[in-house]
Amino acid sequence: MKSVTKPISLHATRTVQRRKATAITEERDDLAVEEPLEIRVEDRPVAVAMRTPGHDEELAAGFLLTEGVVARREDIVAIAPARAKRGGGVEPNIVNVKLARPEAVDFARLTRHVFTASSCGLCGKATIAAVQARSPALAPNAGPRVAADVLAKMPPTLALAQETFQRTGGLHAAGLFSPDGKLLVTREDVGRHNAVDKVLGHLLLSGSIDPAQVVLLVSGRVAFEIVQKALVAHIAFIAAISAPTSLAVDFARSSGQTLVGFLRDGRMNIYAGADRVGE
Amino acid sequence: MKSVTKPISLHATRTVQRRKATAITEERDDLAVEEPLEIRVEDRPVAVAMRTPGHDEELAAGFLLTEGVVARREDIVAIAPARAKRGGGVEPNIVNVKLARPEAVDFARLTRHVFTASSCGLCGKATIAAVQARSPALAPNAGPRVAADVLAKMPPTLALAQETFQRTGGLHAAGLFSPDGKLLVTREDVGRHNAVDKVLGHLLLSGSIDPAQVVLLVSGRVAFEIVQKALVAHIAFIAAISAPTSLAVDFARSSGQTLVGFLRDGRMNIYAGADRVGE
Repeated sequence: MKSVTKPISLHATRTVQRRKATAITEERDDLAVEEPLEIRVEDRPVAVAMRTPGHDEELAAGFLLTEGVVARREDIVAIAPARAKRGGGVEPNIVNVKLARPEAVDFARLTRHVFTASSCGLCGKATIAAVQARSPALAPNAGPRVAADVLAKMPPTLALAQETFQRTGGLHAAGLFSPDGKLLVTREDVGRHNAVDKVLGHLLLSGSIDPAQVVLLVSGRVAFEIVQKALVAHIAFIAAISAPTSLAVDFARSSGQTLVGFLRDGRMNIYAGADRVGE
Repeated sequence: MKSVTKPISLHATRTVQRRKATAITEERDDLAVEEPLEIRVEDRPVAVAMRTPGHDEELAAGFLLTEGVVARREDIVAIAPARAKRGGGVEPNIVNVKLARPEAVDFARLTRHVFTASSCGLCGKATIAAVQARSPALAPNAGPRVAADVLAKMPPTLALAQETFQRTGGLHAAGLFSPDGKLLVTREDVGRHNAVDKVLGHLLLSGSIDPAQVVLLVSGRVAFEIVQKALVAHIAFIAAISAPTSLAVDFARSSGQTLVGFLRDGRMNIYAGADRVGE
């Protein structure tokens, strides 16, 4: 497939007045960049994401994967920046996805689904049932088995790779790790869900990573949508540095996924699928 | 207006396996509750928010305020839990809003707007222009003037009121403060935007708080949408315990708002509207 990705700075500089007690200084400060990305499918706008620019093709691919529009790499023919107007120049904040089988896309369903903020039902149970009907629960023997001490080293590895957060304090990170603790890919974004969509888009587009053999690590908290996105991408093992929500735990349990929270300082809380965590 | 709000627990208990080095224990853990809320206007579904139950009427009111559907308290006739099916019982995860002038609602525009994830344009500039066309920039002399030492005491006051976070580590908080540092209202939610919508909904429904005389404080980071929501609610002063994004700063500057970030440990960074921060 054709692709165009330019390296883009994740941070922008603005002047700031710093105060501590009565001391006031004017300085330059690095901030996380936030800009809207319009995602188009076959030239039809389907979503706008407030995101950190960069890896926009992966964001679009991950979004379409987790929304159920595409399932494999071959479903995507090309992802490229679009033109805002006929005859105009390339617009960096619009990306258009061309599909192998555009006639199979239910645009009404896609719009309705995005419209409901990616939730699929009414109560927790209905939500879980609706999502799992689309993505069956994983078998207990699916997914990787990861040693606890290998798991414990993943957050510092992610933090080392997460350069912009150190600078701006403003970005979420997501990463995919192999079962022996090797960082395969990491992406940062002002939006937690965007960072996850980007690594899942990378997984889809690269074609070289087996989702059944990775751990998805996120830098912050884990709500329902992160665990749901992982299931759609066939990922069995999710770890987070901070807390999960009740629905994230319930969903992981009924999906046969492993969910580890508060993975930091040599500790971890295993909320679901503890069998995949080894000694 | 009629209203029904029951106190609901913000946390739920689940079993967890805790590991530290080779020590493994099974315990009960408190998690932030996450459940979907369907918001209906005149019995038509307009959005689903993954939220922490409680203050759902405020969430619905704040959502409709910041989406431009209502502007004042009198625009809302009633907010009440709806029935999922004809003849069925009250469904706690659906709330229906009855309006004084339902014929004025442009449902197509509302759906389109929610559909695009509450962003309003294509690039940062277009976004700012589109939002500000709806909500004019504030005058320099609008909004409160707040002493730096009063501002510095707001985060610990919010943290004291934010009981669930201490327990679960999983909730965002938003609060409104008077210029002399009194906490007027605080709300917690798994979603950062929901916490803000709840306090803005409270502001609208209470009718007793002047938005021109409050500081909106959020517990985490500040992206574009938070500053935009504040402007629609006529709030001139926004403070955050963590970092803003580039677009949040740009938007606050061109809207005449004050934006303070990294408000903690006796320090603060003033990114916009420093004139409203006194000695």
